[in-house]
Amino acid sequence: MEPNSELELQIAVAKVSKYAVAESGDSVELIERPNGGVSLVVVDGQRSGKSAKAISNIVARKAISLLADGVRDGAAARAAHDYLRTLRGGQVSATLNILSVDLGTRTVVISRNSHCPVLIAHGREGELELLDEPSEAIGIHARTRPVITELPIASGLQIIVFTDGVLSAGERYGEPWDVPGFVHSQLGDYATQLCARPLADALLSRAVELDRGRPGDDITVVVLSIGERQTADDVRRLSVRFPI
Amino acid sequence: MEPNSELELQIAVAKVSKYAVAESGDSVELIERPNGGVSLVVVDGQRSGKSAKAISNIVARKAISLLADGVRDGAAARAAHDYLRTLRGGQVSATLNILSVDLGTRTVVISRNSHCPVLIAHGREGELELLDEPSEAIGIHARTRPVITELPIASGLQIIVFTDGVLSAGERYGEPWDVPGFVHSQLGDYATQLCARPLADALLSRAVELDRGRPGDDITVVVLSIGERQTADDVRRLSVRFPI
Repeated sequence: MEPNSELELQIAVAKVSKYAVAESGDSVELIERPNGGVSLVVVDGQRSGKSAKAISNIVARKAISLLADGVRDGAAARAAHDYLRTLRGGQVSATLNILSVDLGTRTVVISRNSHCPVLIAHGREGELELLDEPSEAIGIHARTRPVITELPIASGLQIIVFTDGVLSAGERYGEPWDVPGFVHSQLGDYATQLCARPLADALLSRAVELDRGRPGDDITVVVLSIGERQTADDVRRLSVRFPI
Repeated sequence: MEPNSELELQIAVAKVSKYAVAESGDSVELIERPNGGVSLVVVDGQRSGKSAKAISNIVARKAISLLADGVRDGAAARAAHDYLRTLRGGQVSATLNILSVDLGTRTVVISRNSHCPVLIAHGREGELELLDEPSEAIGIHARTRPVITELPIASGLQIIVFTDGVLSAGERYGEPWDVPGFVHSQLGDYATQLCARPLADALLSRAVELDRGRPGDDITVVVLSIGERQTADDVRRLSVRFPI
């Protein structure tokens, strides 16, 4: 944390399991980076339920523990791939996204091993940028590597990461949706650039609605927002809530 | 997550650095437990600034990585102690609290290696319970172990954990305060039992106020609340915000 900075970072995660499946095959973990900032790891294990959860747990733990040691994101993603491939003989895949705010370099680093695009907005208006360069899930092929994008920390930056439960929402009912279009229209509605929480909730809630209240897959949404500071205090806040 | 459960868990962390020191010597990390639930690790490294941060990082990472592997809390605390003591030759101490919600046993587990008490409320009225059995910081003496308390998950349960920046707030100005008294009066003010966020913010803000806006030490507050569910959805939510 730099004292007297003018910017604020907000990250929001919203996550729900496939309908009638108690355990989500998606794992999300957050860790503080040893040189300042945070990293978020989002893993979607192959299939759903217990076996998927076991896989996504293993991958998330491996990535998080390397990032906590100060290992760079690209190396952590490669290592998570090698680890899973060795452990499961190349038979089990997982998608892996790493989203890092690096206060050493003052950049946001997005690492993709997933067919799902990552959406980027600079400010609340204008076009969304799509990070959709072909990218492979980890665990199967030799030498899989992440597609990495690095952006300077700037006011108005919004980054939206999700697992494929978002993309496939509504498909069963012949109602596919335009995720970037939805995000774009939402962004225009918020009074501030720091809209991580409402945007993540809106996106998840729309996906569940398209699946008629019974998600056909595990769904995870992560939104990162950077904007002008809304509070004068230097407090760092973390909140968690879920049904038990 | 159990589907159709009636309870909701909320955890709130609020954290601020010592005045004019960019890096907090307190570390807080959150991890999902492999058998269900979450663990929160709170570490206060000896002294403040860079050296304290390095120590608290090391201890938090060690504890988190063991908990992520499914190691029980007491063993993780002992291991973190042994690790720090070996690494730094018994010359450097840290306080360590582990707060776990274990959905396997349906209990909350509180592990203390700190002179700071942990406060517990059952419902918003009635007396606060103080966990203040003598407990040693880790890193110095041989065979240090945590003081562990296990409570059943129940509606109305509130657990308040903090580092010693809370206890010492106001002391420099001859204005020590009654932390349990403050918490008790706050609890009565909230309309719901799920008051983790406002209570953590109120406690931190009062501590900073007693230090006249210039905290004399790193201050961390963690509040865990369990209450009747406020939302019908099964969404798990995580939010982070801090100045960058």
